[in-house]
Amino acid sequence: MADEHDQQTRRGPGRPRQAHVTRAVLDAVVDLVAESGMSALTMDAVAARAGVSKPAMYRRWPTKQDLVIAAAESRIGPLAVPDMGDFRAELRALLTSRMEAYRRPGVDRLLAGVIGAAAEAGAEPGAYRAYTARVMSETRHLLERGVARGDVRADVDVDAAATLVAASLAFRMVGEQRLPDEVLVESVVDLIGRAVGDRP
Amino acid sequence: MADEHDQQTRRGPGRPRQAHVTRAVLDAVVDLVAESGMSALTMDAVAARAGVSKPAMYRRWPTKQDLVIAAAESRIGPLAVPDMGDFRAELRALLTSRMEAYRRPGVDRLLAGVIGAAAEAGAEPGAYRAYTARVMSETRHLLERGVARGDVRADVDVDAAATLVAASLAFRMVGEQRLPDEVLVESVVDLIGRAVGDRP
Repeated sequence: MADEHDQQTRRGPGRPRQAHVTRAVLDAVVDLVAESGMSALTMDAVAARAGVSKPAMYRRWPTKQDLVIAAAESRIGPLAVPDMGDFRAELRALLTSRMEAYRRPGVDRLLAGVIGAAAEAGAEPGAYRAYTARVMSETRHLLERGVARGDVRADVDVDAAATLVAASLAFRMVGEQRLPDEVLVESVVDLIGRAVGDRP
Repeated sequence: MADEHDQQTRRGPGRPRQAHVTRAVLDAVVDLVAESGMSALTMDAVAARAGVSKPAMYRRWPTKQDLVIAAAESRIGPLAVPDMGDFRAELRALLTSRMEAYRRPGVDRLLAGVIGAAAEAGAEPGAYRAYTARVMSETRHLLERGVARGDVRADVDVDAAATLVAASLAFRMVGEQRLPDEVLVESVVDLIGRAVGDRP
């Protein structure tokens, strides 16, 4: 619960006015990417759509990449799943929430765009790595809580298992270009539950 | 083995001269992406680097996206693993070969670039989907052979399990921006082996 609180604090903007600006800008990014793809995304287009001044935007997001990562994180950021007393239930909650986020319009292109930005010349990996580190840390936390509770094997490779958890739906969507659905969520819960469980 | 043969035939170019051109062009794509990223990749730059005429290139790869997908497939295409009589051994062979391919210079950017291209306006998903379908079909084949042999559960969701197999190393590299290594391969073999195995 401490984690959940920290995250709210970290993610939450300072004042109501600023929260409004943040929301308008990130919504504009997602809408524009959904409508016209990454190459149509410019700082000008975002400012116009959000009704925000460009200096106000540049202060918070100096580059287009920062903007795209912030938009991605607003839709598919780290997810603090509360202790439900059961690893499989928590895994199901995590993946269901991810699936719902992935199925929203524009999120597929947004995620592909964030990944693609890493392939550009001179791409600064810092911001992206920090984002991905937050997501993976929360995923590992779920597994570690299972180990502490006893429904995840103590000898599990948490790092590799967290990669499998985080990879499944993202790869289905971005790699296979198919929208993840409830059938996939249930199967992944079953597969990973067996993979890391104390017994089959 | 029939599959392996088909694939060679499908992938193999017609004449020695054409094979040489194909190789020179795809090598040039990988080198250019490794050196300068996706945005520096132009048909002109590839033609110059490969020492090939542009018309010869356009005949085979009408767009930059076609070229990038062909280059990606030349490095990380479908992989026909022979029947080794044991699912875990075959999974290890598949993932080890993938890991080695992913660790070659430029492949990380190339894969991120292929994915990113899907986020562009007017991106034609056909060629990418066909590529990914070939990769996934070979991955499912491995699981189905295990089911037929009896060392993969008959009730396993082959579609979801294939996604986990294909997702693991690709996500570690492109999503987490860490190079996959032997430790990850061994852990994934163990995790997926337990997930789909007849017994723990």
